[in-house]
This record gives sequence, C-alpha cells and structure tokens, in this order.
Amino acid sequence: MTADTIPIKWPGGAKCAVCLTFDFDAESLWLNQDPKNAEQIATLSLGHYGAKVAVPKILEFLRAEGLKGTFFTPGWTVDNHTNRVEAILKDGHELAHHGYMHRWPNPDKPAEIVEELDKGLDAMQRHFGYRPKGHRPPASETNHIVLEELVKRGFLYTSACKDDINPYRHVLRDGRPGPIELPQQPSLGDWGYGATHIKAPRPLFPREHVLSIWQDEFEMLREWGGLVMVVMHPQVSGRPLRMKILREFIAHTRKFDKVWYATGQEIAEVFQAQERAAKRAAAE
Amino acid sequence: MTADTIPIKWPGGAKCAVCLTFDFDAESLWLNQDPKNAEQIATLSLGHYGAKVAVPKILEFLRAEGLKGTFFTPGWTVDNHTNRVEAILKDGHELAHHGYMHRWPNPDKPAEIVEELDKGLDAMQRHFGYRPKGHRPPASETNHIVLEELVKRGFLYTSACKDDINPYRHVLRDGRPGPIELPQQPSLGDWGYGATHIKAPRPLFPREHVLSIWQDEFEMLREWGGLVMVVMHPQVSGRPLRMKILREFIAHTRKFDKVWYATGQEIAEVFQAQERAAKRAAAE
Amino acid sequence: MTADTIPIKWPGGAKCAVCLTFDFDAESLWLNQDPKNAEQIATLSLGHYGAKVAVPKILEFLRAEGLKGTFFTPGWTVDNHTNRVEAILKDGHELAHHGYMHRWPNPDKPAEIVEELDKGLDAMQRHFGYRPKGHRPPASETNHIVLEELVKRGFLYTSACKDDINPYRHVLRDGRPGPIELPQQPSLGDWGYGATHIKAPRPLFPREHVLSIWQDEFEMLREWGGLVMVVMHPQVSGRPLRMKILREFIAHTRKFDKVWYATGQEIAEVFQAQERAAKRAAAE
Amino acid sequence: MTADTIPIKWPGGAKCAVCLTFDFDAESLWLNQDPKNAEQIATLSLGHYGAKVAVPKILEFLRAEGLKGTFFTPGWTVDNHTNRVEAILKDGHELAHHGYMHRWPNPDKPAEIVEELDKGLDAMQRHFGYRPKGHRPPASETNHIVLEELVKRGFLYTSACKDDINPYRHVLRDGRPGPIELPQQPSLGDWGYGATHIKAPRPLFPREHVLSIWQDEFEMLREWGGLVMVVMHPQVSGRPLRMKILREFIAHTRKFDKVWYATGQEIAEVFQAQERAAKRAAAE
Repeated sequence: MTADTIPIKWPGGAKCAVCLTFDFDAESLWLNQDPKNAEQIATLSLGHYGAKVAVPKILEFLRAEGLKGTFFTPGWTVDNHTNRVEAILKDGHELAHHGYMHRWPNPDKPAEIVEELDKGLDAMQRHFGYRPKGHRPPASETNHIVLEELVKRGFLYTSACKDDINPYRHVLRDGRPGPIELPQQPSLGDWGYGATHIKAPRPLFPREHVLSIWQDEFEMLREWGGLVMVVMHPQVSGRPLRMKILREFIAHTRKFDKVWYATGQEIAEVFQAQERAAKRAAAE
Repeated sequence: MTADTIPIKWPGGAKCAVCLTFDFDAESLWLNQDPKNAEQIATLSLGHYGAKVAVPKILEFLRAEGLKGTFFTPGWTVDNHTNRVEAILKDGHELAHHGYMHRWPNPDKPAEIVEELDKGLDAMQRHFGYRPKGHRPPASETNHIVLEELVKRGFLYTSACKDDINPYRHVLRDGRPGPIELPQQPSLGDWGYGATHIKAPRPLFPREHVLSIWQDEFEMLREWGGLVMVVMHPQVSGRPLRMKILREFIAHTRKFDKVWYATGQEIAEVFQAQERAAKRAAAE
Repeated sequence: MTADTIPIKWPGGAKCAVCLTFDFDAESLWLNQDPKNAEQIATLSLGHYGAKVAVPKILEFLRAEGLKGTFFTPGWTVDNHTNRVEAILKDGHELAHHGYMHRWPNPDKPAEIVEELDKGLDAMQRHFGYRPKGHRPPASETNHIVLEELVKRGFLYTSACKDDINPYRHVLRDGRPGPIELPQQPSLGDWGYGATHIKAPRPLFPREHVLSIWQDEFEMLREWGGLVMVVMHPQVSGRPLRMKILREFIAHTRKFDKVWYATGQEIAEVFQAQERAAKRAAAE
Repeated sequence: MTADTIPIKWPGGAKCAVCLTFDFDAESLWLNQDPKNAEQIATLSLGHYGAKVAVPKILEFLRAEGLKGTFFTPGWTVDNHTNRVEAILKDGHELAHHGYMHRWPNPDKPAEIVEELDKGLDAMQRHFGYRPKGHRPPASETNHIVLEELVKRGFLYTSACKDDINPYRHVLRDGRPGPIELPQQPSLGDWGYGATHIKAPRPLFPREHVLSIWQDEFEMLREWGGLVMVVMHPQVSGRPLRMKILREFIAHTRKFDKVWYATGQEIAEVFQAQERAAKRAAAE
C-alpha cells in the first residue's frame, strides 16, 4: 500500500517553509566528471567562479536579506577554498555534507561511498572542528548503502529524493529508521536553467522563465503546506543575471505572509520534534 | 491512395471532445528504463511521487471539477500501488491497460508483447475483478502484433498514433478490423515540458509555455471538430506547478461552449455507434 | 577573395520575396532514419499525419489566402500518397524534387545520389507526366556530386545552402555554372520548434516563440531586400497549433507593403532573367 | 586560500566596460569539427555566411554606431577570406588571434598547440604585416601550455576563462606572470541561442529570450563594476534576426550612463596600467 504524505505544522503558523540551499561544488564537480578536466583551465574556471566571485556575492545578499542558507559542500571544496567555507560559517549559515570529490554514490562501490563520507567529514573536522548534521549526496542521487552509512555516522537528515512535498523519515532495508529526508521538486533548482558546457551544451534560460517556474512551485507548495526546497549552486546562481533571479524570487516570496525561511537543519529538527510528539501521543 | 480523416459528431452538438488521460507509470517507467535504477532511490522517487502525492492531488482536482479521467496503468502499478488504483476506481474514473512493466512493445519480441498484455490484465483481474476496455502501449509506440493481440483480448480501443485529429479504426495485417484508435497530438502532453533526469537532462518549461501550446491545440482542434487528447503522467502533472497548469488549462477550456469532456471509453463508444450507423445506412 | 552577396530586384518593386515551401516527406523520413521504423506504427504515424490530415488543411489555407506554395516531395510520397500530390498539382502549386526515400546525399555514395534523383524523377513522370524544375536535397544537405547531377538533368534551381540572403548560382568543380541556389536561413523552419520523437526527444516551442523568430527574420530580410525562404513540413506545420502559427505569420507579413509571395520556380526565374540581363549589359 | 576578485577602475568613471567580440571562424569551425564536412556544402555554407554576408553587415552596423569590435580570427579565415579581414582592419577594429584551423587546444598535443599559434600568427603577418596582441583559444577552452606559449610570443591578453567578472593576470605553472585574462560570462554569447546543425540539433531562441539574458547580465555587471564581455560569431549574430538582437542590445546599453565601450586590447591596457600603478604604490 502506498503511504500518504504526512502534513507538517510549520513554526509560528507558517503555511510553508523556504529552504535556500547551495551545493558549493566549485571545481570538484568538473574534476569528478572527467579526469582530463584537471588540465582544462576554462572548464575548471566554471567551478572556480563559484568560490572566487559567487560565494562572497551570495553571502552579501543573504546578509542584506537577513536569511540563512544551507551550504552542501564537498570536502574537496573545504580543503581548497577554506577561507570561503570559513566565511560561510562566520555568517552563521549551515554547513552540510556533500561528499568529498563529488562522486555520485554508486551502489556497486560501497567502499567509495564510505570513503566519500569519511573524507568529507574529515575535511570539516580538520579545518573547523565541525561536524555537519545535514547531507546531500552529489547529483542528488542516493541508495540504501548511503542511508545506512548516514545512520552509522549520526546524520540528522539527507536531501536527495523527489517523492514528497513534506519531510519524511527513510526506512532502512532492515526496517530500522533512517535519516530524515528533505525532499526536492525537480524544477526548483538552478542547474537546468543556467549551466552549460561546450562538450554537453544545454540551453540557457532567462529570468522570466526561471521566475515563472520557481514562483509557481512556491505558490502551490504554500497552498499545499509543503517544503519549498531550492537547490542552487554558487557557480550558477552567483552569476550576475542569476543573482537577479534569486533577488526577485525572494522579493516575490516576501509578498506572502506565513512563510518560514529556514535552514535544512531547522526544518529537520521541526520534523523530528513532531515525530516524537506523535509517538508519545500514540503511546498514551 | 491516402484516406481522408473521417469527421465525428460529438454528443450534444459539441464541437470537440476533451479527453484527460494519465499514464500512471509510477516507478515502473524507471525500472524498465535501466535495471540498475532498482537501487537508485532518488531516481525511483521521481516515479514514487506519482503514487504518493500526485494521484491523490489529481483525484481531488478532478472531483472538484466534476471531471472523469482515464488512467492508463501498468500492472506493476496495480500490484504495488493498489490503494491508489482503488481510489481511482472509487471516484468513477476509467482504468485502462498500459502494459505490466512499462516495456516498450518490440515487434521482434512477440512473446514479451503477449506477456505484458496478459500480466497487465491479470493484475487488474486479481485485485479488482476488473477488465479494461481501453489500452495505451508504453511510450505510445505500437505495432501490428500489439493490434492483433488487442483484438484477441476484446479491447475496444487503443491510443498511441499521431496520424489523425479524429478517432478511427485500425485495420489488421489480414484486413480484419482492429481496435479503435484515439489519436494524440505530439505536443499535447506533459513529459516533454516537465520531466527531466540527471542522466538524460531535458529543459523544463514554465506555465506560460505549456498553456500557450495546449490552449492553441485545444482552440484549433475545437475549430476543426477534433479530439483533444491530453497525455499526462501523475509524476509530472501532479507536481505543484504542473497542477497549476492543468487547473488553468481546464479553466481556459471552460470559457468555450460546446466542449465535451469525456473518458477514452466514452469517446470510443461514440465512434463505434456512428460506425455502426454508417454501416447500416450504407447497407440500406 | 570572398564574393559579396548580389542584390536582386524583386518584381513590382517588392522589397523582399516570401517563399512558402513544404517538404512533404510523409513516412519516408522515418523509414530512412531507421529501417526498424517500418514496423513502428506510431512512429510512422507522425509522417502519415502529413499526408492524411496536414496536406488537405494546408491546401485549404493556401487557397483561402490566394497563395502558391512549393512542395518538395520525395518519390516515395508520390508513389504512396498519389492523391495528395495530385491535389497539390490541381491547386496550381509547384511540385519539386526531394529525393526518393529521403536519403541524405552522401558524397561517398555517388550511385545512391543518382538513384535518389532518378527514382524521384521517375515517380513524378509515371504518375503525372511531370518534370520538376526545382530541387531540395533531403535534410537540406548537399555536395558537388548532387550539383553536377542536377545540371545533367536540367534542374533550374536547388535549395539547401545557408550562406546568403539572396539567390545565387552555384559553380561546379570544373568551373561550369551549376543550378541556382535559393538559400535558407536556419531559423526559418518548423522542424526545430515542432517536431519531436520519443527516441530523440526535442523540446517543443509555442506560437509566441516561433512567431517572434519568423517575424524578425521576415522584417530584417525585407529591410535588407532578401529572400524569406520558409522551410516547413506538412507533418509539423499541419498540426493544429502550427497551422495557427502559419496563419498568424502570413497575417503579419500582410501588414507590410511591397512583399512578393512567390514559388521557388518564380524566384529562380527572376534571378535567371536578371543574370542574363547583367551578362548582356556586360557584353555590350 | 581562494583569492578575491580585484576591482578595476574603468576610464572616465565608467561603471562597466562593454567589449563586443566576434569569433570569425567562417568554415574553419566546421572543417575542424569533422573532416567529412569538407564535402558537405550546406554545412560549410553555415560558416561561409559569416564571411559572405555577416561581416559586411556587422561592419556597417558598428560604423553606424561608432563602435569598435574585436575580431578573433583563425588563420584559415585570414587566408581564405582575406578581403573580409582587410575590411575589418580598414575600419579600425581590433584583429586578434584565434588559432589556425580552429582546433581546440589539447594539452596532450603540445606540438599542435604551437602549430595553431604560429600558423595563425604567420597568416596575419603574411597578409597584413600584422601582429595581434589579443588571443582567444578556439572553443574558449585553454590550458597551461597555451598560456606559456602565449607568454613566449608576447601576447598581451587572452580571453577564455569564466571565473571572474573583472580582468586578471594568469599565473604560469612556474609562478611567472602569464597573459592578462579577459573573462567571459557563459550566457553572454550567441552560439547557444542561434546556432544549430542537423546532426547536432539545438533549439533556437528568439530575440526576447536573448535580450532578457544579455540585458540582465549587462545591468548586473554594471552594478558590480565588471566587464561585459560579449562573445559572438558573425555566422550567428550576422543572421537577419540576430542583427536585430545586437541592435536592440546596444540601444539598451545606450540608455545607461557611464558605460565604456572598448576593444579587448583597450581593456587589457587599462588593466596593465593599473597593475603597474599598484606595484609602484606597493614598492613605495
């Protein structure tokens, strides 16, 4: 039997939650995609833009707006753009796990999955003594091995699946509870509209196109009481025109009341609290 | 000699028929596309959304609008999302055949074609004692073996071809009459505008884009007296923004008089009655 | 040294010529693309629509508008949709050559190039005693062998190249004059906006998108005094929504004065006359 | 540690610089892409349009506007469209290096990189006794060998990377200063919106789409004080409709004050002067 989505009560009577997330891949995405890219300076520069220009611009914007974001950051980025990650932490944003070399989790290579998780944790520990509670797998693809390893390492939540409008808890293969899932809508991202590469060209779309999609998703999710999970990348959303899109999108959401802007961790904690309350109520 | 399209008289003096169809593939589409997807939870979640969130939302919408849809449903979905199919039947919608594992009909594999048909029928029989009259092949691709096997099993109609604006009757290879065809227009769907996957990325299009296409097809088909066959998928059209598109599309068609909203079966039965009347008239 | 484009004086002081062309491929395009398509009825139905529904609708439209089109038609279509080609001729449109099985001209297969040309000519001769003066190679790709064989067969013009805004004359490899070229602009077609296939999916674009492109090309070509060569396919432009686009495009061009609507042959003959006059003038 | 972008003071208190660049590839791009294209006349004609029609139109436009462009031109184009390159020089535009046969720089083939550079220089030297100061690698892809060879040949600047909004100086592998980089934004081009080919079809986008993107990039880069580097190709931007886009884009930028229109060389020289001044200031 297919389970129903479980409605969530957002804090302060909010009708929806807006979660601004940034997958801060920098060059790691391109290095993982093709080892030859290590020598392709212009290809790498697409990712380098994310660190050099985009993150400072995004931090400036979030500061001006009084908003906190969640930065899913590969360990490679932590090691190679340490001062940018430091700035993210200094501004009080959430730093979360996103693998080490941005390798897509492959269920046929469990050792690689473990290595990506541990090296990613290690980089954050080494530089900042920081232990993330949140996780998003590279490419937002996941499998049961990932979920099990996340539980072993005490992660509170992950964010990869597209099967709900509300958070839910994964169930492991052996029936034990898995991490909380903060699901995505496939169209609430930036990559599909603003990223392209000469060897895999994709059309680029203007502000009106992206805003129409993002605003419709927002308005309907607010109507339905769901989670507005926006999946961005500094190397895309930090481009001049894409910053304008983000700016106008936030301005649009400000026109609505009862919108709760929150980090992944805050949302997962709200889910967890309601889950516990529901269990207590059921036990009474 | 190329035959002409045969005009149809729609009931109540209607100028066109609008047929809302939903290919309720759920995970079966992804499982069939690549066996490795069985372990890719985030890929499967795209299909799972169709069952978990989309079908209830679509049923709620159709109920509010007083509309009946036709749900082309693979046997796999009947077996794995039985309560969702039950809800479809309970609301009085048409349940129709869509293969078992969403395998595209391959003329080089007749045994597979037969197996898909029989296992699909069996699932509906086992769970609901139901025998569908309508059929749409997965991927809306078909061949003569499919048509012959449909006749053997007494199907009233199928819906795959794009060569007409009106229903017509297929002719089998041996000259016998085949099932009725309820043809499609290639642009009157949702997949090409709202579905994407990280391994086969497609651009996503906003409401204005889809509405312009759907409304133009509707208005012209109404002008021409044809069939407005809309081919949707819960996993696409049940996304927040896509529901808004469907809502506005229906609202747009409501502005026109003489529009007949009907299920596939109702349309096929009107065609069949006129075909019989024409034969009687010709025999007199 | 790169030659300059040679301006042409359009009849009656017109500022540009508009040439409406239809590549009436029907199923031949799909049969040539993949031999397996011979059994794929739904794929073939995309082409069949061009013959069954689209050509009658297009002829009706052109009649109402008092316009003549040029129908580049493969021999296969002449053999298999003879009554449709007959209707084209009966309405006084230009019938022109477009290969036999819609094989793309391959310079490594000269015998195939010859066969396509001769079988195409033969089909028109057999059915209608007709000898075309115009030619467009399938896929609008060409090579020197094609040009040479066209000259041998006395063709007046071909239409494949994208290197000019005005007609010009090809030069054969041995320096002799080749056929006249009626060049295209890559964006003045319908395929890239309105054709898609499940195995090679392309995004579909709405009326506003296509009209913006076509109207801008028209307005600029009128400003520049060039040839507005529109490359359509009945199986695309004969779809309900695409007919609306063509209707509105023509209505838009009607708002401008000094527009000469002409067939390929009429345009080629104007070029030929001016070319002769220029030679005479130069000889004096 | 990731370096910050270094702001630049544009001449006359300008808020941004607009650099109109044209990669004048003509047929070389297609010849390099597939050797078989040498016989494909219609494919080559896409590039030939750039020389035959587009460059004269673009020069006429720039003259009327009083603007200077930078033409990155492969040696093959210099050899085969010499009169067009002569016209570019005569109008006072900047001629810059763009390889010889438009081969993408491959770090595994250093001899080919050297050959492309030297043959490109030779062609300009032979025909015009001209030595370019600027360089853009074909496909805007680059590597350390390219940078080193540019330094050996005394190039002032190159333009390929996408990691900044301001010019910067490359650092060679051995720590020595490399050429100045004039970086691009990936969406400020024409290829992705207006180029297509039958064997690699891409959707084409209308004026509104391109203008929205270009204008947003311009306005934001002006707000940020950066470089508006527009990467065009005569064979695309010289098409009728694309000329309208360029015309309207320039008209839009004219509505803003404090915009400095400059060639690549002028921008690189401003950067160089400020770099020297900064070094002097630091030394004092």
